[in-house]
Amino acid sequence: MKQLIIILLALIAMIPETQAQQQWTNTDPYYARRVTLFEMLPVGKKDIVFMGNSLTDGCEFHELLGNPHIKNRGIVGDIVQGLIERADPVIKGQPHKIFIMCGVNDISHDVSGDSIARAMERLVVMIKKGSPRTKVYVQSMLPFNNKVREWKLLKDREHVVVEGNAALEQMARRQGVTFINLYPLFVDEEGLLKKEFTNDGLHLMGPAYAVWRDAVAPYVK
Amino acid sequence: MKQLIIILLALIAMIPETQAQQQWTNTDPYYARRVTLFEMLPVGKKDIVFMGNSLTDGCEFHELLGNPHIKNRGIVGDIVQGLIERADPVIKGQPHKIFIMCGVNDISHDVSGDSIARAMERLVVMIKKGSPRTKVYVQSMLPFNNKVREWKLLKDREHVVVEGNAALEQMARRQGVTFINLYPLFVDEEGLLKKEFTNDGLHLMGPAYAVWRDAVAPYVK
Repeated sequence: MKQLIIILLALIAMIPETQAQQQWTNTDPYYARRVTLFEMLPVGKKDIVFMGNSLTDGCEFHELLGNPHIKNRGIVGDIVQGLIERADPVIKGQPHKIFIMCGVNDISHDVSGDSIARAMERLVVMIKKGSPRTKVYVQSMLPFNNKVREWKLLKDREHVVVEGNAALEQMARRQGVTFINLYPLFVDEEGLLKKEFTNDGLHLMGPAYAVWRDAVAPYVK
Repeated sequence: MKQLIIILLALIAMIPETQAQQQWTNTDPYYARRVTLFEMLPVGKKDIVFMGNSLTDGCEFHELLGNPHIKNRGIVGDIVQGLIERADPVIKGQPHKIFIMCGVNDISHDVSGDSIARAMERLVVMIKKGSPRTKVYVQSMLPFNNKVREWKLLKDREHVVVEGNAALEQMARRQGVTFINLYPLFVDEEGLLKKEFTNDGLHLMGPAYAVWRDAVAPYVK
């Protein structure tokens, strides 16, 4: 009987602490390909890494900011847990700076703003532990616009972006890293992504990336 | 009657010469966004531009080749006519070198190898006219592998890649530009894209990009 209890306790100990911390698998073949590419590309001490989802993936930041040390580590569809799981090749490189933007795909998976900030905090702590000299910049989530095109999984969830950004800002303060609030630069009077910045209500046109560039340029330098 | 004939002739003269030369519109919102970004990003005389489709889009060539002058102008889904229509911002920059890879999407639109090479020739002529000092490198198309995943529009069209590459090589010789034959590096004994290079039969994993890098590195330098 004692032995059975010990075995049961051992099995319970092997269950991951929370679901959010479980291994997360993105089944998109594009995702897997980008991961294999990123595992191959070295990151160095002078580098400035942009981690994120499709919004980061969609831009040539090293060109936009005129800085050859900038490396794009965005992947379409990514969530914060995805960033955590593929952070190792970035952290090992001990880069000069890391800029992070993530969360809107988490929202489409029905994750709350607080949960997004908690996941982001795990990532920030992981970076601070693994690469203490790296300067971390947590960028706010951007608004979306379901009037341009309906994203069903984001329906009526505009408020989660606002709540998530507030929680991200608090988290950044707690962790002593910089929070960059891009949201006000992209939002219209109705709380939606400015129409002229998007052609699908979620992703950014060229001129919108210029706004992003101008906002982060002082931190990149 | 004479007037009617004149009007008819005038109308006929307004019809584009061939269908391939007609304005081509890609309706993918991603495509439109990339175009607006590329129109905004400057190209300069020291730059080395990689033009192409998803195979180019999927890689960070400036990192892979360790050259900050490399600029990626790949867009998922593009065909040669698409490259022609968005070539202006590249040509205006009078870049040092242009590497081009395109054609597999044309094949999925049922275009022949000869037609692909003719379209590519129009692009090469356009570059030579608009930027005579630019060195042009036409890269071969890569094989695909319909056993890994079936791409219905490419079914039984492996031979079109081979024919297209032969036509591209002839065209490059005729135009006095360099042809880089990547095909043999990516093909297996059955004429298919090597299984270990892909996870969907068409697009490339990280290690496959290393093969591409090694093949073009002598020309990039």
